[in-house]
Amino acid sequence: MSANGLDEERICVIGLGLIGGSVVRALRKIGFRGEIVAGVADADEARRAVELELVEHAEPDIAKAVAGATLIVVAVPIGAMAGVFAAMAPAIEPDAVITDTGSTKASVIAGARAGLGSRFARYVPGHPIAGTERSGLGAGFAELFQGRRVILTPTEQTDFDALARVEALWDALGARVSAMASAHHDEVLAATSHLPHVLAFTLVDTLARMAERTEIFEYAAGGFADFTRIASSNPQLWGDIVTANHEAILPALDRYIGDLEVVRGAIAAGDRETLAATFARAKSARDGFAAQGD
Amino acid sequence: MSANGLDEERICVIGLGLIGGSVVRALRKIGFRGEIVAGVADADEARRAVELELVEHAEPDIAKAVAGATLIVVAVPIGAMAGVFAAMAPAIEPDAVITDTGSTKASVIAGARAGLGSRFARYVPGHPIAGTERSGLGAGFAELFQGRRVILTPTEQTDFDALARVEALWDALGARVSAMASAHHDEVLAATSHLPHVLAFTLVDTLARMAERTEIFEYAAGGFADFTRIASSNPQLWGDIVTANHEAILPALDRYIGDLEVVRGAIAAGDRETLAATFARAKSARDGFAAQGD
Repeated sequence: MSANGLDEERICVIGLGLIGGSVVRALRKIGFRGEIVAGVADADEARRAVELELVEHAEPDIAKAVAGATLIVVAVPIGAMAGVFAAMAPAIEPDAVITDTGSTKASVIAGARAGLGSRFARYVPGHPIAGTERSGLGAGFAELFQGRRVILTPTEQTDFDALARVEALWDALGARVSAMASAHHDEVLAATSHLPHVLAFTLVDTLARMAERTEIFEYAAGGFADFTRIASSNPQLWGDIVTANHEAILPALDRYIGDLEVVRGAIAAGDRETLAATFARAKSARDGFAAQGD
Repeated sequence: MSANGLDEERICVIGLGLIGGSVVRALRKIGFRGEIVAGVADADEARRAVELELVEHAEPDIAKAVAGATLIVVAVPIGAMAGVFAAMAPAIEPDAVITDTGSTKASVIAGARAGLGSRFARYVPGHPIAGTERSGLGAGFAELFQGRRVILTPTEQTDFDALARVEALWDALGARVSAMASAHHDEVLAATSHLPHVLAFTLVDTLARMAERTEIFEYAAGGFADFTRIASSNPQLWGDIVTANHEAILPALDRYIGDLEVVRGAIAAGDRETLAATFARAKSARDGFAAQGD
């Protein structure tokens, strides 16, 4: 058993974007003594990852990357997950454990079930709720998971010992791990992450298409910068997330549009009381959220 | 002429919330050598403002507060502006200049026109685009206006020398001053500030009324904290702002709801391309905005 309760010989991270890059940096920082290797999109990126000393070895061939790994962390965009699972399946060691970091769970689990075949019981679906609007090889940092939530959504087939090993990984990286059903994860994340991204992207696009666009952005202040920060996120990745989790996002979005119509009616009617009451309920909930660690 | 080009003998600030409190702190910090007095809501607050050394004298009687002032800055919630203008009008010195800090301009100008009477030409409508979600006597700080935009919206009746003196005030406090028509100000601010507040308040209220509310806030991460920060703003104040500027907010809100319906349709249809294209346009605009000084 290593110092951090993380008893793996070789960890293979597939994808070195913000999340995968942060996993390898965090593993180094906690003094993980096993081997760290990576599977990455192309040979150039593999070379840079080794030059940056992110990993000991990196390569574009996924089957070669996972061979010999005791723990495999798949941190590619969710649209690429199914293909990665299928590509790695034949090369996975018998006792190896596989996990992922995708922002949606039902769709990724479906891809894993199809791609991993007989290895599916060794797969633990996971989602570190940590991110910034940045992406790419340089975006990761070792402290990204410190104190953050990681949700694991084991299926009925998931081996208990596989679950324990993935818990040990995130524990070692400083995260707070909990478990829930994948459908429930997808509903909660639709509300707190996917819907806000849709709203922010849409707002910035709406404003960018207005005649006054130059002045609008010129006179926007700090509140606007915070409110729209998530609209600087990767568009391709978020197109995939929103499409994959449409079942949970659509009801939340419909409820929001309905509530927005009510607020619109109150504005049109000059109904200060309804507006102030709605805003006051929101402030109370937001202040409560902030108090638990903004 | 003083060191900062701010040639006033006595500045009276009405209201010592975030904005008014920051004005008096900033005046101290730049070494303003004139007198600083305040009109505040009640005797207790007046006592505290003097104890905190925010001002040399403070008092609840607005007419007494403005007597002898060469420059009057009205920094009360916009719903209280009209009453304050009417209350001060008889006591304003002949050469005194009046300005305000309200987030909407057309409605405040209407109140000033009615309340100030013959003094209306000495009034310069203004709006420092600086704020946080906090409010109250303790919220202000001297650096709030540093590098921030201040928009002045003089009317056809506004005296040129009054405009110059209000420009000198904000210049001295480190802000970047520009001028535009009040209707244009209200449109631009509807888009960048009022609409985002409506969207954020409504989202947090929508989520707070969902069955999973506890988990939703428990598993929300940094992006959500930024996106909803403005929903911690003062609900009463924002009810007033949104009502006052409904003419500019409603068309922007309608356009947004229309765009949201298009995005909803793309999500329902699994139309990744439309989603990714919309999100990409938004990211490009947001990144451009961030590059000009996030």
